[in-house]
Amino acid sequence: MKWEENVRRVVPYTPGEQPEKTGIIKLNTNENPYPPAPGVEAAMAAMEIDKLRLYPAFPEKTELAKALSEHYRIGTDQIFIGVGSDDVLSMAFLTFFNSGQPIFFPDITYSFYDVWAEVYKIPYEVKPLDESFQIRPQDYTQPNGGVVFPNPNAPTGELLSLDMVEEIVRNNRDVVVIVDEAYIDFGGTSALPLIEKYDNMLVVQTFSKSRSMAGMRIGYAMGQPRLIRYLNDVKYSVNSYTMNTAALALGVEAVRDEAYFEQCCHKIIQTRTRAEQELARLGFQFPKSCANFIFASHKSVSAREIFERLKENDIYVRWWDKERIKNFLRITIGTEEQMEALYQALEKIV
Amino acid sequence: MKWEENVRRVVPYTPGEQPEKTGIIKLNTNENPYPPAPGVEAAMAAMEIDKLRLYPAFPEKTELAKALSEHYRIGTDQIFIGVGSDDVLSMAFLTFFNSGQPIFFPDITYSFYDVWAEVYKIPYEVKPLDESFQIRPQDYTQPNGGVVFPNPNAPTGELLSLDMVEEIVRNNRDVVVIVDEAYIDFGGTSALPLIEKYDNMLVVQTFSKSRSMAGMRIGYAMGQPRLIRYLNDVKYSVNSYTMNTAALALGVEAVRDEAYFEQCCHKIIQTRTRAEQELARLGFQFPKSCANFIFASHKSVSAREIFERLKENDIYVRWWDKERIKNFLRITIGTEEQMEALYQALEKIV
Repeated sequence: MKWEENVRRVVPYTPGEQPEKTGIIKLNTNENPYPPAPGVEAAMAAMEIDKLRLYPAFPEKTELAKALSEHYRIGTDQIFIGVGSDDVLSMAFLTFFNSGQPIFFPDITYSFYDVWAEVYKIPYEVKPLDESFQIRPQDYTQPNGGVVFPNPNAPTGELLSLDMVEEIVRNNRDVVVIVDEAYIDFGGTSALPLIEKYDNMLVVQTFSKSRSMAGMRIGYAMGQPRLIRYLNDVKYSVNSYTMNTAALALGVEAVRDEAYFEQCCHKIIQTRTRAEQELARLGFQFPKSCANFIFASHKSVSAREIFERLKENDIYVRWWDKERIKNFLRITIGTEEQMEALYQALEKIV
Repeated sequence: MKWEENVRRVVPYTPGEQPEKTGIIKLNTNENPYPPAPGVEAAMAAMEIDKLRLYPAFPEKTELAKALSEHYRIGTDQIFIGVGSDDVLSMAFLTFFNSGQPIFFPDITYSFYDVWAEVYKIPYEVKPLDESFQIRPQDYTQPNGGVVFPNPNAPTGELLSLDMVEEIVRNNRDVVVIVDEAYIDFGGTSALPLIEKYDNMLVVQTFSKSRSMAGMRIGYAMGQPRLIRYLNDVKYSVNSYTMNTAALALGVEAVRDEAYFEQCCHKIIQTRTRAEQELARLGFQFPKSCANFIFASHKSVSAREIFERLKENDIYVRWWDKERIKNFLRITIGTEEQMEALYQALEKIV
């Protein structure tokens, strides 16, 4: 068909499996094993169904923006809210990466970056992590069209020090630098304070991991008002209302309940420490993780085999058939009980 | 700042005002005055908060896709679900309009089309409606990069006959033709059956108008599986999960409760008939509307003046300061009571 010649051809991002059967121990998509803050349930109960006939409020004018602004002590004009950090990052790529110069990101990283670059026809160049899976700031000094990297990086879990983050931003004042902090709450220090100093820096976070709300799709970017305004202009040129009324209402308590939030993060960090011991004991090696997952390879059994054998046991982890990382598994930190089942299953496999 | 040189500069779409104060008679954004189907409330009550920690299901595998498929008697592989029809249309522009040739749409139409064309750098050419605000199919016969039009058209409310819709599709077999049926349930006949015959035709509908769920942001496109697959590929290259768990759950009953749906549409059509009489009596002229709004101009008082005076009376309608239509108001059909208040206010103004 002739019309097919003008279809944008892409190789879409492949998200982790979402099994339809129940009883799965799901350690494959970095979801939080604990439920959302109790206030989220109350907010749902308080929602008025009749209001759903009306278009949602503009995110920047909602309680959600106010809650984020109070939590991070920045203005509501420094926050852009989107449908998960994927929407936020995608909008940022579309808004800021238009120079024709290649954008830079690590070779081993969130595998959506190259997909966004492809779909929006943005040239890109990957910068290999070093031998120990570290980002080298000196790789990001050549002229480029923008820089994006996760901190902690995914799927490695490696944290870049704040000094090194700042070094990358300082060396790239002519382009927008996006620090993707999806996993920052599990042990890292956010680069957020740097936005005051650098008008070209965007910090992106999400409700999907540390706030247990992957299902509601809420992400946000923080930066100086000018950056946020540009983002909003493009967003309002794509869809006037991306955040539905339910997401805007339910997100609020997930931000306000700081005690619950810290308690969940703390539990996950404790379980991760225990997991490091257990996995080491079982013969796994892994970089130090500051995220809610561990990126591990076994000294004798291939990652693929472990992946498949675990799946037979209804335990899902993530594996990529990809250069440099095909002998690694990304294992999400679940509850203590889920992890116990994992260790027992691994005991039999390795 | 140098980074600003590479920002995508756009003039965003301006949605109708969403007043924060209450007590407004809101006839400015074509929302449905009746609440969503009763089953929607039950679905919300049945939602499990704990599930929100997990990513949402893929839309094509949900009850929502199944409900739509049963309602329209097409396969789930013929349905693409997005965040309101704006998301669906935006994705369709990005996916299908890549030829470099200008796409065609009417000069007076949904004012998001040119915004999407601008943001995605798609060349376009507008085809003026005739004197009586009708689309002329013969204007859409030159070579082009795609065609998109609403039926009924917005903001005029004019319906194009199915024969004329088919004429446009038949004359444009080499490109994708999008029929935007946001308002079709208020008196039009859907072009849906034509998708069997034309593999290049996409029919787009929404839950925001006839299904009273603007706040949940649900729209969908229907077409042959190949078209839907291309759309999904691009969508999965932008955001893996655009539909949150709540939207997927709450939409189902809005489709299944056909009796309630028909009852609401019927009431709105009745109120529209009455509104035509009242507005004519008050000295307004308007094309015959098949939508949930009337596009009216007054024989002696300017639209701008009426717009502003109504606003002072807490009645919001829509007005554009735009060539050809600046003497028209788009008045959403509200409840009988809301419309009564409108007639009374107009009585004093005109």
